[in-house]
Amino acid sequence: MDAAQEAQSCQSICVQTIQHCLQMGGSHVEPSHMQLLQDCAEICETTATFLLRGSPQHNQVTAACATICELCAQSCDRFTGDAQMKACADECRRCAAACQQVAQMRPGGAGGPGHRSVP
Amino acid sequence: MDAAQEAQSCQSICVQTIQHCLQMGGSHVEPSHMQLLQDCAEICETTATFLLRGSPQHNQVTAACATICELCAQSCDRFTGDAQMKACADECRRCAAACQQVAQMRPGGAGGPGHRSVP
Amino acid sequence: MDAAQEAQSCQSICVQTIQHCLQMGGSHVEPSHMQLLQDCAEICETTATFLLRGSPQHNQVTAACATICELCAQSCDRFTGDAQMKACADECRRCAAACQQVAQMRPGGAGGPGHRSVP
Amino acid sequence: MDAAQEAQSCQSICVQTIQHCLQMGGSHVEPSHMQLLQDCAEICETTATFLLRGSPQHNQVTAACATICELCAQSCDRFTGDAQMKACADECRRCAAACQQVAQMRPGGAGGPGHRSVP
Repeated sequence: MDAAQEAQSCQSICVQTIQHCLQMGGSHVEPSHMQLLQDCAEICETTATFLLRGSPQHNQVTAACATICELCAQSCDRFTGDAQMKACADECRRCAAACQQVAQMRPGGAGGPGHRSVP
Repeated sequence: MDAAQEAQSCQSICVQTIQHCLQMGGSHVEPSHMQLLQDCAEICETTATFLLRGSPQHNQVTAACATICELCAQSCDRFTGDAQMKACADECRRCAAACQQVAQMRPGGAGGPGHRSVP
Repeated sequence: MDAAQEAQSCQSICVQTIQHCLQMGGSHVEPSHMQLLQDCAEICETTATFLLRGSPQHNQVTAACATICELCAQSCDRFTGDAQMKACADECRRCAAACQQVAQMRPGGAGGPGHRSVP
Repeated sequence: MDAAQEAQSCQSICVQTIQHCLQMGGSHVEPSHMQLLQDCAEICETTATFLLRGSPQHNQVTAACATICELCAQSCDRFTGDAQMKACADECRRCAAACQQVAQMRPGGAGGPGHRSVP
């Protein structure tokens, strides 16, 4: 999967994990944890859209996304033995790695994102 | 693909198609056509999120999404011989069908959407 | 305020109220209540954007928004003596009324929304 | 207006300006200009939400928003004698200034954003 797809997958699992946490209650609904899940879902959505439209201004957005995804993964790590939290942490780390790689590309460079159209 | 995934795919291709139309210019950037592509991307994003969080209130949103996707498909149909527009129209119709099916389900019913978690 | 502005105000207060509920805990973080606040924030954002771009396809979106805002208001009503919940319920009802009025307009009609530009 | 309100106002005017540009045609629909308007609307929406929920992780998002708003303002500046483009450029600069100020605050510091509730 490319970074746009990882960002969409990460948004999806964060949205689902928010509901999971609400159903679990207790430490799962700790405000800063829930805030990170919401932040992560939102910046992932924005990142996906920037990459899909091949925006030359994606670097700061993908860099922010990588940071927030890593923080969200760490927040999810604390819930050992919870398969949903484990899956969310794993996806956040995949998205962070993909975003970090894209953020380091020179905008407009050969390997950078571009307008992707049907061949 | 389920309706949430179709809605995400449809959002993605609409975002890409907007850039394609801007690069083509001419009749591709006709205001009402571009407006539909933007409307479609936005309602698809909202629909995906409602379905991912298993919202019982998804019916009106998925019904609106089905209508707008069909209108967007018809608007894309006019550009014959353009592979991007064809792909966008096809995805819009797949999403419209998936949303229509979900919109007709009884909220909370056996076949309806629900909070999906990792098993 | 017009319907687009009410929808933005309603999105804002729902986003703030989600954090308020997380900080309150207990019955404030009941899953269906929190789900409605998220649904309401999201459909309000979409509604605002449809209205701001003067989309002829706004009717189903504003109708869905009116329904969800009213349900969210009812969910907030249950927390008596909580000023944030009261303010959120009040804004949801203002937004529901504004959206209902706009949804009943004939698309493209004299009183309907249109592309608003600087004079 | 605080930064969250500026970001919402900036998102709104960018959404309206996209429609204005589509109706004007010609150089108004140049792909990189239209891309910036879309980027600006989207990062402003994300910024507003981060600030409204008092996210400690807002710094990179507000910094990205400030950069993109300034680029969007410069892109709008080129259309002299167009009141909509002038109003959009002005709002983008107000939002850039507000975001830059917030981005430089120490997260969690005395002057930083916080969960805002009804008193």
